[in-house]
Amino acid sequence: MKSNLLSRQDLDFLLYEWLRVDELTKRDRFSEHSRETFDDVLDLCEQLATRYFAPHNKKSDANEPTFDGERVTVIGEVKEALDAFAEADLLGMSMDAEFGGAQLPVTVSQAGFAWFYAANIATSGYAMLTVANANLISKFGTAEQVDKFLRPMLAGRFSGTMALSETQAGSSLADILTRAEPQPDGTYRLFGSKMWISGAEHELTENIVNLVLAKIPGGPPGTKGISLFIVPKYLVNDDGSLGERNKVAIAGLNHKMGQRGITNTVLNFDGAVGYLVGEPHQGIRYMFTMMNEARLGVGMGAVALGYTGYLKSLQYARERPQGRPLTAKDPTTPQVPIIEHADVKRMLLAQKAYVEGGLGLLLYCAKLVDLQHSAESDEERDAVTLLLDILTPIGKSWPSQWCTEANSLAIQVHGGYGYTREYDVEQHYRDNRLNPIHEGTHGIQSLDLLGRKVTQRGGVSLAALGAAIAATVEAATAEGGDAAELAESLSATWQRLVDVTTAMFASGDIEAALANSVVYLEAFGHIVVAWIWLEQVVACTGRTGDFYDGKRQAARYFFRSELPKTGPQLDLLAALDRTTLEMRDAWF
Amino acid sequence: MKSNLLSRQDLDFLLYEWLRVDELTKRDRFSEHSRETFDDVLDLCEQLATRYFAPHNKKSDANEPTFDGERVTVIGEVKEALDAFAEADLLGMSMDAEFGGAQLPVTVSQAGFAWFYAANIATSGYAMLTVANANLISKFGTAEQVDKFLRPMLAGRFSGTMALSETQAGSSLADILTRAEPQPDGTYRLFGSKMWISGAEHELTENIVNLVLAKIPGGPPGTKGISLFIVPKYLVNDDGSLGERNKVAIAGLNHKMGQRGITNTVLNFDGAVGYLVGEPHQGIRYMFTMMNEARLGVGMGAVALGYTGYLKSLQYARERPQGRPLTAKDPTTPQVPIIEHADVKRMLLAQKAYVEGGLGLLLYCAKLVDLQHSAESDEERDAVTLLLDILTPIGKSWPSQWCTEANSLAIQVHGGYGYTREYDVEQHYRDNRLNPIHEGTHGIQSLDLLGRKVTQRGGVSLAALGAAIAATVEAATAEGGDAAELAESLSATWQRLVDVTTAMFASGDIEAALANSVVYLEAFGHIVVAWIWLEQVVACTGRTGDFYDGKRQAARYFFRSELPKTGPQLDLLAALDRTTLEMRDAWF
Repeated sequence: MKSNLLSRQDLDFLLYEWLRVDELTKRDRFSEHSRETFDDVLDLCEQLATRYFAPHNKKSDANEPTFDGERVTVIGEVKEALDAFAEADLLGMSMDAEFGGAQLPVTVSQAGFAWFYAANIATSGYAMLTVANANLISKFGTAEQVDKFLRPMLAGRFSGTMALSETQAGSSLADILTRAEPQPDGTYRLFGSKMWISGAEHELTENIVNLVLAKIPGGPPGTKGISLFIVPKYLVNDDGSLGERNKVAIAGLNHKMGQRGITNTVLNFDGAVGYLVGEPHQGIRYMFTMMNEARLGVGMGAVALGYTGYLKSLQYARERPQGRPLTAKDPTTPQVPIIEHADVKRMLLAQKAYVEGGLGLLLYCAKLVDLQHSAESDEERDAVTLLLDILTPIGKSWPSQWCTEANSLAIQVHGGYGYTREYDVEQHYRDNRLNPIHEGTHGIQSLDLLGRKVTQRGGVSLAALGAAIAATVEAATAEGGDAAELAESLSATWQRLVDVTTAMFASGDIEAALANSVVYLEAFGHIVVAWIWLEQVVACTGRTGDFYDGKRQAARYFFRSELPKTGPQLDLLAALDRTTLEMRDAWF
Repeated sequence: MKSNLLSRQDLDFLLYEWLRVDELTKRDRFSEHSRETFDDVLDLCEQLATRYFAPHNKKSDANEPTFDGERVTVIGEVKEALDAFAEADLLGMSMDAEFGGAQLPVTVSQAGFAWFYAANIATSGYAMLTVANANLISKFGTAEQVDKFLRPMLAGRFSGTMALSETQAGSSLADILTRAEPQPDGTYRLFGSKMWISGAEHELTENIVNLVLAKIPGGPPGTKGISLFIVPKYLVNDDGSLGERNKVAIAGLNHKMGQRGITNTVLNFDGAVGYLVGEPHQGIRYMFTMMNEARLGVGMGAVALGYTGYLKSLQYARERPQGRPLTAKDPTTPQVPIIEHADVKRMLLAQKAYVEGGLGLLLYCAKLVDLQHSAESDEERDAVTLLLDILTPIGKSWPSQWCTEANSLAIQVHGGYGYTREYDVEQHYRDNRLNPIHEGTHGIQSLDLLGRKVTQRGGVSLAALGAAIAATVEAATAEGGDAAELAESLSATWQRLVDVTTAMFASGDIEAALANSVVYLEAFGHIVVAWIWLEQVVACTGRTGDFYDGKRQAARYFFRSELPKTGPQLDLLAALDRTTLEMRDAWF
């Protein structure tokens, strides 16, 4: 039976026929692996997600964690699922072998994670945060920190969080107030309060490893004075056993619209013991390693929610009889499945274009991470990094927007049923709505793209992406026919984007150039995803059958119905429109 | 203190400075009224909405109605609010005086209702349905039906529902199966089951008057064989007292994503006594009177939810300090309120453009209803009806889409807080998501517009709208400056729409012409709202001050950032794109 979480056929196409992930095994880092080990992991992830994560998705939404003033209670199925995940050694899927990981490509581990996100985004959030936390410690932690915190996390005994935001600072990390006072023994005592901490308090694991940004008194102002600390819920003795309760406590729980199954809360530090990670005042740089990974994780989560909603609405549309073709209105004839109606096909095709485009984008980004990790020269690593840098804000923001839109269409396909909690899609929509907010809002991503990534080092990232797109255009043009037509359209739109970008900065009016950064982000995102679709079309070359015809049709849909939306966006940007800038507070 | 539900200043501007609703009092139907009586009603609505409806909005969301197998329990505040509404005689606001109504213009009663929708869409839904039900009985019911059912509804003793859908039929009313068997005494016995009935069961009123579509055996197939019946929960004796329980029962309650405070359920008829309304087999025609009114009510509900979300996010943006201007990144300077950031201004301006545009559209439609009701000649009534016909699908669908988008932006302005249930906006977003579904889905509206309204009687409705737009363009052109520039843009876009529409049908390929009906609906909607904005700009002529500057700026925003979105949509339509039609089931 086909899964209604993701399409394994699509994953196989993207991983092997398009990205040729199996070729990564020729590289030292992945030489212990083979397509078989990749496939085994994907099988395992599908099975565990289906067996342990999907069944309690609705239940944990309806029964969110509760806090009695001392202890947080989470429904039992969450622990059962996370234990199964840990016992299958999935927490270390892509971790270096030296730390006990399986050293699988991130492309494969992200594809594996996608099954869990699709099944239950909230429960898998605990695992995702733990993995991101462990990755950071593996890169910047001491050997002692690795032993005390990372290894128990990989074993599933401890879990991890990332604690950046504060109530008064939100996206403005320069303004955090949590302070870390150095102690004679080399440790620190933390004082302050963090907000929006997912997984901050629960009894799912023996201990919780909080990675916390704080300022050491006397350091430089702003983000340059921020350091990173490990602040565990329980102190850990030298033999690895748990010591006393650290002075970390929650004040209550946030109650969210969706993703209700994962605790989210204020975390207070009242002289809590913390251990500096790496050097003082380098916290933002370290945290951004984790943050970039988390941003791609958010993007993949958004894709997975979009994908399962798409498959569920597809199944509904095939099974639900209602109405008749336009040309056969005789009410005595039987009703037809709604998939036969043009507008339902439109809503399904749009979802397919969004979710398969998004999945392609995130797997492409994951492969860049693998190429970065396994680069055979500095030049190669640098080239890959440039591309990954500029794609990260798109990988985070585009699926957050368009796969949430896919979930809205999935509701619409279901009609009134889709609006009820008896069906799954309304929860997916609520769950997905978080994604344009956390790990850097849509607006923050747009400033990262336009104010930083596009212009960095004289625009080399933009040029790197341009070169990648040009290569795809060349391959598609060589194929001729439809592919060549799509290539021509992409090439022209990309050139327009480059011209507009140049003109925006040439104006010297930085304020106006950045005023419509979200419009830029959205146009840029659509062009990138059009490119990902053209890549998929090229990968279909010479292949026949329904699956490949479906890919080609979804690409056509994207190019005809979606890519042209960038026209007016680029016009607005080219005009350096100042409408929002000129709006005054008093005029609202 | 300014309300955070709606802006009374904006309502006054739209009602008096733009629509000149006070001039309606020159007409016979409204001659008992004056601007003073209008203002009194608006004051009263604001007060009651604020005092009785807003305070339990969150509570009724968190404590939705429950059903113990026999009785439905709704939190007490709902009854208190509805009783206050009824005691203030608001149920009969626009009802004819002969039935005990106040015979106010619908424009005023809709503006009044908007306060309640903004305060609590679920609780006000009971009142909205009762009014729509009463209006239908007033038009097509017998004197006995008026006395037995309408008068107690206006008094607040009874409430009303509309029961159209069935589980196997959904939007396809031709396929309903509920049957009504004639009895020797002239009554009918109903057998069958209805779905999605809001307000179908509760103890808020003494009795519930269900208006039910059913087929009398032997009638024509499809929608031509559908009749309309009054099927009360309790029979009513000739003296007006309640008789025995009718055989109408619910099987359970639906659990919705939003609008949780209003019961929604399956309603079963097992030989229930029903009273025919009007003639047999005319049920669809009668029901559409109510349906058109309900569709505009849905549009106004969507606007009101969008409006209150906008005001709340505006207040938040003014009060929340975070970050610094692009040109002042020194972290030792104080943070600024987020309203100073360009992207936050963009999100607020977009919301303003959506909700004030939507409010204008719905009040314009309401005034058309008043002109229809008070027409002094058949020609006048016909001209107004043509315009109302073509605007109704827009009045329903446009705010359902864009004021839900406004609610999404309101969440985004709040950041993480907006995603929590501690703030109001996440509920508004969930509540609003119903609006593109009920009372005819987005897809149904698009077929109504393109397959019926645009082409009816050789396109006279389209021509009537074109004439109205031309008049606005002329006035704005005469004003010169910015207004003339916007007029030129609207005029060109409208002409393009007309040309594309003509070309679509000239092709003779009806299937392709209708395949992208939703794209047509959305382009049409944006053009209509651009026109409504140009109307508002013209109404601002000669007026100065922040309020009017804000109106002009929101209009500019709409013309620069929104109207151009129709370009690619019209291109797709002009190309008679067959991408969705050619998509095959097996390709998904």
